[in-house]
Amino acid sequence: MGKTYKVQFRPDDVTADVDAGTTIISAATKAGVFINSLCGGEGVCGRCRVIVREGTTSGGSIESFTRDEVRQGYILACQAHVESDLVVEIPPEARLAGAPEHLPSEVPLLADPSKLARRGIRLSPLIRKTCLQLRPPSLEDNVSDLQRLEQALSKAVGAKDFQMGLKVTRRLPHLLRKSDWKVTAVTGHRGPLTEIIDVEAGDTTKRNFCIAADIGTTTVVCHLVDLRDGQTLGRAAKYNSQAAHGVDVIRRIMFVSQSPDNERILREIIIGDLNELIHELATRYRLSTGDISLVSVAGNTTMMHLMLGLPAENIRKEPYIGAAYHPPPFRAAEVGLQIGPRGLLYCLPCVAGFVGADLVAGVFATGLAHSDEVRMLIDIGTNGEIIIGNKEFLVCASASAGPAFEGAECRSGMRATRGAIDHIRLLDANHVLNYSTIGSAPPVGVCGTGYVDLVAEMLRVGLIDRTGHLNRNASPGKVRTSQHGQLEWLVVPAAWTGNNTDITISQADINNLLRAKGAIYAAGAVLLHALNMTFNDLAEIMVAGAFGNFLNMGNAVFIGLLPDIPQDRLRFVGNSSVAGAKLAAICGACYDEMFDIAARTTYFELSTDPTFMDQFVSACFFPHTNIELFPSVMAEMAPGKEG
Amino acid sequence: MGKTYKVQFRPDDVTADVDAGTTIISAATKAGVFINSLCGGEGVCGRCRVIVREGTTSGGSIESFTRDEVRQGYILACQAHVESDLVVEIPPEARLAGAPEHLPSEVPLLADPSKLARRGIRLSPLIRKTCLQLRPPSLEDNVSDLQRLEQALSKAVGAKDFQMGLKVTRRLPHLLRKSDWKVTAVTGHRGPLTEIIDVEAGDTTKRNFCIAADIGTTTVVCHLVDLRDGQTLGRAAKYNSQAAHGVDVIRRIMFVSQSPDNERILREIIIGDLNELIHELATRYRLSTGDISLVSVAGNTTMMHLMLGLPAENIRKEPYIGAAYHPPPFRAAEVGLQIGPRGLLYCLPCVAGFVGADLVAGVFATGLAHSDEVRMLIDIGTNGEIIIGNKEFLVCASASAGPAFEGAECRSGMRATRGAIDHIRLLDANHVLNYSTIGSAPPVGVCGTGYVDLVAEMLRVGLIDRTGHLNRNASPGKVRTSQHGQLEWLVVPAAWTGNNTDITISQADINNLLRAKGAIYAAGAVLLHALNMTFNDLAEIMVAGAFGNFLNMGNAVFIGLLPDIPQDRLRFVGNSSVAGAKLAAICGACYDEMFDIAARTTYFELSTDPTFMDQFVSACFFPHTNIELFPSVMAEMAPGKEG
Repeated sequence: MGKTYKVQFRPDDVTADVDAGTTIISAATKAGVFINSLCGGEGVCGRCRVIVREGTTSGGSIESFTRDEVRQGYILACQAHVESDLVVEIPPEARLAGAPEHLPSEVPLLADPSKLARRGIRLSPLIRKTCLQLRPPSLEDNVSDLQRLEQALSKAVGAKDFQMGLKVTRRLPHLLRKSDWKVTAVTGHRGPLTEIIDVEAGDTTKRNFCIAADIGTTTVVCHLVDLRDGQTLGRAAKYNSQAAHGVDVIRRIMFVSQSPDNERILREIIIGDLNELIHELATRYRLSTGDISLVSVAGNTTMMHLMLGLPAENIRKEPYIGAAYHPPPFRAAEVGLQIGPRGLLYCLPCVAGFVGADLVAGVFATGLAHSDEVRMLIDIGTNGEIIIGNKEFLVCASASAGPAFEGAECRSGMRATRGAIDHIRLLDANHVLNYSTIGSAPPVGVCGTGYVDLVAEMLRVGLIDRTGHLNRNASPGKVRTSQHGQLEWLVVPAAWTGNNTDITISQADINNLLRAKGAIYAAGAVLLHALNMTFNDLAEIMVAGAFGNFLNMGNAVFIGLLPDIPQDRLRFVGNSSVAGAKLAAICGACYDEMFDIAARTTYFELSTDPTFMDQFVSACFFPHTNIELFPSVMAEMAPGKEG
Repeated sequence: MGKTYKVQFRPDDVTADVDAGTTIISAATKAGVFINSLCGGEGVCGRCRVIVREGTTSGGSIESFTRDEVRQGYILACQAHVESDLVVEIPPEARLAGAPEHLPSEVPLLADPSKLARRGIRLSPLIRKTCLQLRPPSLEDNVSDLQRLEQALSKAVGAKDFQMGLKVTRRLPHLLRKSDWKVTAVTGHRGPLTEIIDVEAGDTTKRNFCIAADIGTTTVVCHLVDLRDGQTLGRAAKYNSQAAHGVDVIRRIMFVSQSPDNERILREIIIGDLNELIHELATRYRLSTGDISLVSVAGNTTMMHLMLGLPAENIRKEPYIGAAYHPPPFRAAEVGLQIGPRGLLYCLPCVAGFVGADLVAGVFATGLAHSDEVRMLIDIGTNGEIIIGNKEFLVCASASAGPAFEGAECRSGMRATRGAIDHIRLLDANHVLNYSTIGSAPPVGVCGTGYVDLVAEMLRVGLIDRTGHLNRNASPGKVRTSQHGQLEWLVVPAAWTGNNTDITISQADINNLLRAKGAIYAAGAVLLHALNMTFNDLAEIMVAGAFGNFLNMGNAVFIGLLPDIPQDRLRFVGNSSVAGAKLAAICGACYDEMFDIAARTTYFELSTDPTFMDQFVSACFFPHTNIELFPSVMAEMAPGKEG
């Protein structure tokens, strides 16, 4: 081992001791500060710019820095290596922090309990508390303490095959006697077995809470649910701090594949995020985390792997195989989750390497898997996951859309957080903008819903043509060549922004967005083609994912992200992943059904389908090469405005 | 905390650091040396006499020491407290060591595989190894690694509900690929679930061993079994080192009830004994302990509790309730057993506080629970456990016989180890003895089978009458008054013994033996009476327990320990407890059946039965108050010899 240096981060004033040669981004992770990164440490995205105030580093200086920036001490945290004790300042834009503000305020699917009842979903949580008044033993009734408990429990809950750990069994005799034979059994659903997770003195049935979580690549959402009545007490969300090691799942898999240590790092980061949200919710609702007996988690396949510490590297390589898609319940403490020490972690099942538990949860929560009519669910994230089916069949596919719609990979792109432009209108031929920002703050960038609007409006006014080409002459003075030699349109000049930096959209950004929407549309089209159906045969298209309710559906159709079907057949379903995680938690039968759904879902591999590339190329047009597929768009577009 | 002292024990030359005031017996336990004790540290049995060579102690001197002994430094290890650094010598007679030599050489029940086959017992071990050649994944066959394994396993073994721990799942992807998809799955039987305990690279099916164990109060026996064919490779046994803390279960329960620390001490001692035997067998047969995947254990209820660290204190107090009688499988490592790190411990079920898994194992192994005819099984140990039944009913009881027949509580009593008189004949009216000793060594005491013979012969020649009274005039010079003021008969004078000490049998010894045999006989009689049956209605009486095949059955009937039924209906069944433990290990269905047997066995509480005391008093006669119950004895006894 070489020398060790102390790296202090400002303004947090936290410190990490690291070996000489460690990158600053790794030092930050060790110190518990998370730095932005899109490229996962490859030195190309430029999001991890930090300022070295004191000390010596090697590497990390790039050409695109201005002379002034170099003088100030700017370097790329992913490329700069620690060569002495350091003081490093993390500017706000490099910081991966804050909570997402663009979350659906309620999961619409769960808002109506009567609907759940109509679907036959009854409250029967994965973890139940049952208060039992046992009869004290006598010479005539001399079964063991454990049998006495199990017999009473069997009567109360109807189960038969019990399992109880040694530690609880050891505590049982004293507990029963000191509590005058009145105890509360905490039982968990474990396949054909009922596990007696814990036994508590007296009646503790009032304190039985759970966390339903959706761990997205970008955002982690937790709901605190009272298992007595299935009601959600509160919600909390934060960005997935793993983003410091790659904006998308592929980059994170590459990172963990480098060393077992990296696997541990990403696992600890996501567990840390979950624990932060759990503690936040417990504090807000004045609970002890010990009263939380269960965590129910949905997420994409990679995130499920990273959370459990399962090797994810084979997901990235053909034939894209994960370690486990239907993990059994684990002790939550085994992965480091800070709930009751004997609480369980229930992971919802995945279908394939790129069709995760988030989609399965959504399929269940939306009722798609139980409907008579054929419906489609699209989850628009860094991967566009699509499933089509009804109670008889389920077919799914995954399109590598890239993270453009999550605010990444575009020069002015950002997450849907404070200062992000989320809605845009171009008011007139002079291209005067009307926009709103999240938190009504001065704009600092554009998030996904903003880009959908922006592209749609640019298309409407002829700033871009249907191939996506920027029209150099359409907006004199605002369409310009950037310092990187690219054509770009100035959306908001630096003077009006919150960070004194021009907000622009470049030709490369538009191309990214075009490919992203093309991939998602093509995936749906190929799946339908294989089923001998068209979009018009679908009773409904449900949109889940990061956009929440904030997407302008009309504009999404206008640019060809969504197909042109009647608006009443398009529906937002919010975060259907966390909705499914919650339904699993409050209803053991729902949890089991999700495993059935995962098992009966057919995965359709797009990368080997001969028609996919044609469909994709055709869809890389606004709205589509074959505009007749988009009659409402065709009607709106004046012939003169067409490209 | 006070001062700490160093106590060195000779001749072992081991040392323990203990707090001032610790008893020497506790210091010895800490150092890993076990000292004899019958009374469990109450200072009354005098078996723990050690010699303090250097240093200062307080307490531990008793009146019965001779002046010479006091001069030599003799003290009672259970009563003497450490007050300085010490050097303590443990004389051979105080040492709890050596292996029992009086073990049945084979478990007769298992000697004949064809008999097992006739009973429908097929090899299907609790832990199985299955070699699987998996098909590598492809785009068309893209289930997860875990599913691939489970699907192949399901085909191979027919199970459906699997469970696999997180640690194994984490290793799985790398393991499958490095072993070219050829692996061996180690699966365990866990109620309705099949647990995938481990996955090993390549074909390891040749290495799958188990330990079947019987943990008796006095003796611990382990068999090493090859799970490929169910054959026993070897046997090892040792005395239960817990005896240093009490000769019988009641004294050990009293000891553990004193503090949680004592619970830990006794648990560690029995686990240490088991580990010693496991290592001995592994070494003898050149195995790695890692190739042992399962330990199957039977024992009395208290021993099962002490091994698992379950609180045993309520077993001693009315209504005699244990913590758990049918524990599920546990990870062997969780209790400290040194086999494969993921191996399982299967505990056979108990029926009640004083009817243990040893009896249940015996009931299964002997076929009693499946027979058409009604049979009886008697396990003669410190508790006489008796069960009567057939395939339709099972009734059991426990008689507190006391440890007389285990060589304890009699002045010259000893375990069936080297130098113990195990068979005796009185050759003529002059009372010349013909005896054999274990190991043909000079005699140092009398073991259980020796006492049965001795009492029978003394009765035959009129040294005692039918009430058990020593006839002062029958053997002039040999019947005498001891230094404790008791009448005793000199069996072997000091000059002929191996330890230069008279071997005697006192009136108190005879009374102890009379009460012990009376309790066992009465228990059987009361049970039969409740069933409206007599001993003559039994198709067979099977004798299990410490006596092994060494008991002279005729003498056992002569003194009234066993009822006077035709000899061909009396049968030794050896250690039927370890036989049952082995059957459970090699046959999952047998394991399950033992739980059924435990569940359908009715426990009959003798202490509250109004007829028991009458039966007991009547049985405290040689052979019985009502000699007509013993026609063969009546015929043998000349009228003149009757008391």
